[in-house]
Amino acid sequence: MSSSLPAIQSWVDANSQRLLDELFALIRIPSVSTLPEHKDDVARAAQFTADALRQAGMENVEIIPTDRHPLIYADWLHAPGKPTVLCYGHYDVQPPDPLELWHTPPFEPTVRNGNIYARGAVDDKGQMYMHIKAIEALKSLTGTLPLNIKFLIEGEEEIGGASIAKYVPEHKEKLKADVALVSDTALYADGIPTLCIGLRGLVYMEVEATGPARDLHSGLYGGAAPNAVFGLIELLAKAKNADGVIQIPGFYNGVAEPAPAELESWSSLPFNADEYRDNEVGSTAITGEPGRSVFEKTWSRPTLEVHGIAGGFTGAGSKTVIPAKALAKVSFRLVPNQDPAAIVALIKEWVADNAPTGIQCEVRVLGASPGLIVNPDHPAIAVAADVFAESLGRKTVFIRSGGSIPIVGDFARHLGIPTILMGFGLPDDGLHSPNEKFKLANYYQGISTVAYFLARYGG
Amino acid sequence: MSSSLPAIQSWVDANSQRLLDELFALIRIPSVSTLPEHKDDVARAAQFTADALRQAGMENVEIIPTDRHPLIYADWLHAPGKPTVLCYGHYDVQPPDPLELWHTPPFEPTVRNGNIYARGAVDDKGQMYMHIKAIEALKSLTGTLPLNIKFLIEGEEEIGGASIAKYVPEHKEKLKADVALVSDTALYADGIPTLCIGLRGLVYMEVEATGPARDLHSGLYGGAAPNAVFGLIELLAKAKNADGVIQIPGFYNGVAEPAPAELESWSSLPFNADEYRDNEVGSTAITGEPGRSVFEKTWSRPTLEVHGIAGGFTGAGSKTVIPAKALAKVSFRLVPNQDPAAIVALIKEWVADNAPTGIQCEVRVLGASPGLIVNPDHPAIAVAADVFAESLGRKTVFIRSGGSIPIVGDFARHLGIPTILMGFGLPDDGLHSPNEKFKLANYYQGISTVAYFLARYGG
Repeated sequence: MSSSLPAIQSWVDANSQRLLDELFALIRIPSVSTLPEHKDDVARAAQFTADALRQAGMENVEIIPTDRHPLIYADWLHAPGKPTVLCYGHYDVQPPDPLELWHTPPFEPTVRNGNIYARGAVDDKGQMYMHIKAIEALKSLTGTLPLNIKFLIEGEEEIGGASIAKYVPEHKEKLKADVALVSDTALYADGIPTLCIGLRGLVYMEVEATGPARDLHSGLYGGAAPNAVFGLIELLAKAKNADGVIQIPGFYNGVAEPAPAELESWSSLPFNADEYRDNEVGSTAITGEPGRSVFEKTWSRPTLEVHGIAGGFTGAGSKTVIPAKALAKVSFRLVPNQDPAAIVALIKEWVADNAPTGIQCEVRVLGASPGLIVNPDHPAIAVAADVFAESLGRKTVFIRSGGSIPIVGDFARHLGIPTILMGFGLPDDGLHSPNEKFKLANYYQGISTVAYFLARYGG
Repeated sequence: MSSSLPAIQSWVDANSQRLLDELFALIRIPSVSTLPEHKDDVARAAQFTADALRQAGMENVEIIPTDRHPLIYADWLHAPGKPTVLCYGHYDVQPPDPLELWHTPPFEPTVRNGNIYARGAVDDKGQMYMHIKAIEALKSLTGTLPLNIKFLIEGEEEIGGASIAKYVPEHKEKLKADVALVSDTALYADGIPTLCIGLRGLVYMEVEATGPARDLHSGLYGGAAPNAVFGLIELLAKAKNADGVIQIPGFYNGVAEPAPAELESWSSLPFNADEYRDNEVGSTAITGEPGRSVFEKTWSRPTLEVHGIAGGFTGAGSKTVIPAKALAKVSFRLVPNQDPAAIVALIKEWVADNAPTGIQCEVRVLGASPGLIVNPDHPAIAVAADVFAESLGRKTVFIRSGGSIPIVGDFARHLGIPTILMGFGLPDDGLHSPNEKFKLANYYQGISTVAYFLARYGG
């Protein structure tokens, strides 16, 4: 049997309903890694994934217990002399809230307008499952695999990936490979084959402010007592100016500017600023550093975001309280040459120096990973670019992503291998948002493109 | 029978256990006016209060339905040629949250260290009930009352008092009186007879910020998309500087400074700044406008406070979202000569002019009342000062309160009468906070002092 692209595509067509039903069964498991009440669901999703690997023909399938959520390992190593590809994905998902904004329930996948709507549809259950089904396609078309394959799949990607970060450096020999393959990014636009060669890092923290010892009556104490909510507001507002420039001294030290060639290639990408503002972001204006393109702002520049804030009385009606406590979830996206540990130290020092009068501020770091950039001249990436172009019928573009996939840095640092970021999502998929979606055609195209890449890279 | 102060005090002593048990029964009704789920409790508290008025000897007791929570009216008008006193109080309370900080349940009153601990103990159930029991004391000691009495008690004080604000101007003749008596303030310090002759007003509002059309992934959009939480933070932080000075143009126009004599009398009040900071406020510093005393800051200067803020993800763990929405509860305390309607207009204009790029801000006003000051030379106030001094054995001091009792302004505006603010709370009673308390001795002292005031003013 052949592993040509048309043969693979025919296999996908012939199995399309089953390939969808299986993915739906995985999506229905609400494996929200950050919420303790979903711990059993996360375990069920791990078991489902391990079973799927075994079913696809993978061997030595292990569910590896960790301090939090299990890792899954599998391999197939019967192609001596051929390269080894390490496939990575994650089976955990973000919380679905705010629930009231979903048009259909987040864990009941629904196909509308050619899209699968569900939490995890594209990030990353759908894309992780493409890899498994690509193996199954090759096995069933040719009875074997064209190269050696290892899988390492985690259940903590949405909460910082502590367990895999510990596992990789402790299992360098077991994980040894020529290249890693990750599908957790998006096409630049529908139909444009896209390889992502850069990722931002992330420092995620909680900042807690304490003012008075207890909530106070604002009539009696207002004007003389510190207010924890206002203190936290003052502190955070000082950290970034109205142009989006972070005000923490030393924060931009060493930030690498993209090469002129990379900047030039970005400027040739199709981009409609009005459509981006109106339909993707849906705001009255695009914000951020003046004189920078949206590509720079979101791919090669660091950021500060407040993801959430809570404190005091926010129920219905009015309560005149001076709050004693307030909490914010804050992150900094990092770019190549920013060291997460150094950035954390800068931030902590700045908070200590800038806490408003009467306000005590505590910083708790929940995760830290560096930004990185991959060499586009690596042979596996060249093959991937060719295959992708053939599969989608158009020249492959090289972009970056503003998101963080810390494991890519770990693979580079500990295994010495580059990562092919071959994602099939779309920019408006609504990752981490209500009504997350995955275009159905891209799910199928992802399976055949990944299978064809393995065939070509092996052959 | 005599209505001398010793006779009244003996009556209170003889009835002390019953006076406490009755108050406890009222406190046990969780009449939280702002929470719809407590509507029936608020109605029960109204019924309890009406029954108590009838039992004390008041006539024409009415429970008056309103759009939200009932008003209670009662009178006793059999003293022709004598003055008429209008007693005001409120039977509703603030929400008890955060519940976990209470040492004993908020609606199960408990006596510890000579204090009654409960939500509403001092604000205002305990103090409102003193008035009713003062009537009962006089009736049972003398068989009659020394002057004409009207009661008007509301159940919406903690939510802006819309119903009573509508009722008073529509019932000027029915409510006609020479002076109003309100016990909803505190002694300057334990044992010091205190009349409050000034109150701050209040403008209370919600400010809602909208950024992107939906929550966005901060990796993909961070740096280019507006963040509703950060936008709200930026806006609010601009409204007040680090010295506590409000930055809205025109806000301080016309703010009345206290007369030199009043300022001088304040400076002679006992005040320990360290004890205020460490034990009353419990913070590392006292904040607010430089060069102003704590009395000025909290009594005669306007303020801006953020009572609560909510937006984005604040659960356990980390979620990297750019929030679409954020909400803050904000108030401005007003002082004499600031017009609430003009202030609202200034704030709305300022918000419209200062909304950060890409952020839409909506201001919803939940309530507005002016600050005011009472003439201390009014005859009823002079009698109150004498009586209070005799009851507590020390010269009466005249102070202001930073809180807002909008009804006092309504009585002045619509009925043309001053209000005696004769409160028996203490500064550390924890109004609106967990572990609100009322000193038991002050409850009893309040009953006898109010009864003696009525006797002396009538006689």
